[in-house]
Amino acid sequence: MNVKIDGPLYSGKAKDVLMTDDPEIVAVRFRDDITAGDGEKKDTLEMKGYYNSVISAKIFEVLEEAGVPTQYLELPEPGCMLARKLDMIPIEVILRNIAAGSIVRRFPFTEGQEFRPPIIQMDYKSDEHGDPMLNEDIILALGIATRDEISEIRRMTFKINDVLVEFFREKGIILPDFKLEFGRDSSGRIRLGDEVSPDTCRLWDMETGKPLDKDIFRRGEEGVVSAYRRVAEMILDREDTERWNIKI
Amino acid sequence: MNVKIDGPLYSGKAKDVLMTDDPEIVAVRFRDDITAGDGEKKDTLEMKGYYNSVISAKIFEVLEEAGVPTQYLELPEPGCMLARKLDMIPIEVILRNIAAGSIVRRFPFTEGQEFRPPIIQMDYKSDEHGDPMLNEDIILALGIATRDEISEIRRMTFKINDVLVEFFREKGIILPDFKLEFGRDSSGRIRLGDEVSPDTCRLWDMETGKPLDKDIFRRGEEGVVSAYRRVAEMILDREDTERWNIKI
Repeated sequence: MNVKIDGPLYSGKAKDVLMTDDPEIVAVRFRDDITAGDGEKKDTLEMKGYYNSVISAKIFEVLEEAGVPTQYLELPEPGCMLARKLDMIPIEVILRNIAAGSIVRRFPFTEGQEFRPPIIQMDYKSDEHGDPMLNEDIILALGIATRDEISEIRRMTFKINDVLVEFFREKGIILPDFKLEFGRDSSGRIRLGDEVSPDTCRLWDMETGKPLDKDIFRRGEEGVVSAYRRVAEMILDREDTERWNIKI
Repeated sequence: MNVKIDGPLYSGKAKDVLMTDDPEIVAVRFRDDITAGDGEKKDTLEMKGYYNSVISAKIFEVLEEAGVPTQYLELPEPGCMLARKLDMIPIEVILRNIAAGSIVRRFPFTEGQEFRPPIIQMDYKSDEHGDPMLNEDIILALGIATRDEISEIRRMTFKINDVLVEFFREKGIILPDFKLEFGRDSSGRIRLGDEVSPDTCRLWDMETGKPLDKDIFRRGEEGVVSAYRRVAEMILDREDTERWNIKI
């Protein structure tokens, strides 16, 4: 894909989105910044963006192969992804297979309890409002998505869960929960956007039960980047490490 | 109805529920206690329970006439209501016609903004957890109601709104929002329980726009009981004040 990267379009907590000379394509730069607790806890961890970009690219490819439309186009080099420009829907869609994190503090669930069927929770993506939980009536009143879009997002989220639980299981990783963001492409079709990485998923090593994700950072422990690198090692094929020239 | 009131069954923030010699019937004593902000703000206001009991009785009667099943049986005397014993569902069902209160602080809605259609919000009734907002997936995972019960509760809440908006409008009162609680009777049928009063509804005087409800207490202003008495005056017929021998 031959596009020229232009100036910045949007800067998030861990990624920059840049314009390209194709108005339908953006470049996503994965930075080394890491935040937790609505940005209260911050750090910069060398190579974090590198590993998140290759993990996300691999997962977007797995999902596209399974028929899930995503924003992903290609990863010309680790750290920088080319993606379709989406009109992002300001909803954080959280799917939970196993109780962990905020849901255990907020409701009488037990850490580690399995949810069958899984729980989907939608939070309003707004730092100003502290990402409050939504329901369908509130989403419609805010005008941020239509009823059909909400149904489509739910359907896609369950499908993504089925694909990723199986994908990670084969690689020796448990997927307790994850956060997705969706957007509309230029034809109005809902596509998975943002990233799917140890920043946005809980990932537990199947053998040790230990986290390989941002919980390590949330707990103030060492070894964040080595855990992210371990995820890359576990999920990438030799073909991936070769085509992306990845240092693992 | 000839039942003998026995000992206490349950004591809430503003009401006591007592057993009777009929296992399917309870007596509900409306106390003068008033609380706000999860019980952080407390007071005792003479005659508050009296007016809430007659307002609730009247509204339950209006709803029953409109075909909405409630727990209400009769009001033998102001302050004490006989009601069917229900297996209460620990959900606070909030319907909003007009944006006011917490929804305006939590989301970018404007105070006074109309919701068409109205918003239904369901909160988990748990002081320990601070009444967090629910969604259908979480309700099912908690096992506190079935999918059919949630649908029935939504259907009943919209019906109750239609009936009460019209009832209050005819009496010169605007109904911005209200909170309901539901339970299952001995046959498993969902019925409206708890109370419907200025403690649980926002009620605005149509002429002055001023609140006639617990917001007066929340704001630390005087005149709570006189506002509640005013609501009773506005909604009760002469026939009601006579049969209940009400002092207004």
